[in-house]
Amino acid sequence: MSSSPLLANLIEALRCLPGVGGKSAQRMAFHLLERDRERGLKLADALREAMQRIGHCGRCRNFSEEPLCTICAGSSRDRQLLCVVESPVDLAAIEQATGYRGQYFVLHGRLSPLDGLGPEELGLPQLAQRLGEGEVEELIIATNPTVEGEATAHYLAQLARAGGVRPTRLAHGVPLGGELEFVDRGTLAHAFGGRQLLE
Amino acid sequence: MSSSPLLANLIEALRCLPGVGGKSAQRMAFHLLERDRERGLKLADALREAMQRIGHCGRCRNFSEEPLCTICAGSSRDRQLLCVVESPVDLAAIEQATGYRGQYFVLHGRLSPLDGLGPEELGLPQLAQRLGEGEVEELIIATNPTVEGEATAHYLAQLARAGGVRPTRLAHGVPLGGELEFVDRGTLAHAFGGRQLLE
Ligand SMILES: [Zn+2]
Ligand SMILES: [Zn+2]
Repeated sequence: MSSSPLLANLIEALRCLPGVGGKSAQRMAFHLLERDRERGLKLADALREAMQRIGHCGRCRNFSEEPLCTICAGSSRDRQLLCVVESPVDLAAIEQATGYRGQYFVLHGRLSPLDGLGPEELGLPQLAQRLGEGEVEELIIATNPTVEGEATAHYLAQLARAGGVRPTRLAHGVPLGGELEFVDRGTLAHAFGGRQLLE
Repeated sequence: MSSSPLLANLIEALRCLPGVGGKSAQRMAFHLLERDRERGLKLADALREAMQRIGHCGRCRNFSEEPLCTICAGSSRDRQLLCVVESPVDLAAIEQATGYRGQYFVLHGRLSPLDGLGPEELGLPQLAQRLGEGEVEELIIATNPTVEGEATAHYLAQLARAGGVRPTRLAHGVPLGGELEFVDRGTLAHAFGGRQLLE
């Protein structure tokens, strides 16, 4: 029996967070109530704003609350390099592990006909158009080294060649069957630096 | 570099949760944005309501958004039994592990003069008054089996005797130097059932 319906409600709501079970949710709720209400309120605001206002960048499809994300809107990134990733979490891993200074394109998935994910859903017409504009010289294909990720990489390489763009793939070093976001920084940085031309 | 200031803000805010570091916070934020915005908004509401509206029950000092918590306000709990705990998380552990049907009193701490925690801060005058009202027959002292918890138990036993109330302490079985909330349910239930009269 809980002494407070609002507390029971908070504990239940915290379980929407990945990796948080009943026991952790309870500890989180008690911790915030006893020691950190100010930051609890800040988290409430941050959540509401993020859930309501964050959409997708019109150019790279990464998360952004503006029509263009800060990476696409800035002038400091090399526009001749374009790195394609499956998800924003992969983009974050590359940003944190490597010194990459080019731009990105986020698929939000991988080619998977059975799940209804085709070229249209992944924004590939938009990517093809961008490759055709002539600014991009190298397309760095950083899809995950899984079966579907490899098939997607193959498709992307054809798209690049059709646009006169050099397709490259991350070097060996990324373990087969793994997910980029779980690769340690050193390995990812090495694989990124040693990316190879797709023949 | 983050593509979205609101996203960076959310990741930072999630780190107020105990046990959540930078990497987990990032995974939580991406998960909510990609798959669970509805529940993310519900969590924002639950957090705001809890942080702003939950105070302390006027009778047992446990968390409550009403003047009396649901345990104190209800008529189903035995008013002759009163269990004293250091914190709401201990109360929750006892509720979940035992079949206890009495009432509670929450100290929100333990006697610790060096930290400025004396009888006043722990609500002991209020507890003494309640013990003097004649309704309570047994005071179950469930402070943690630490040095300060034992000293607090000793003080509470004297308070009980002064009010003509029988003080009991949880049976051996709770490991010395441990914290109640980390004790497994079976041990806690056993210790609770076998509580002993303090001589
Ligand atoms: Zn962008
Ligand atoms: Zn109460």
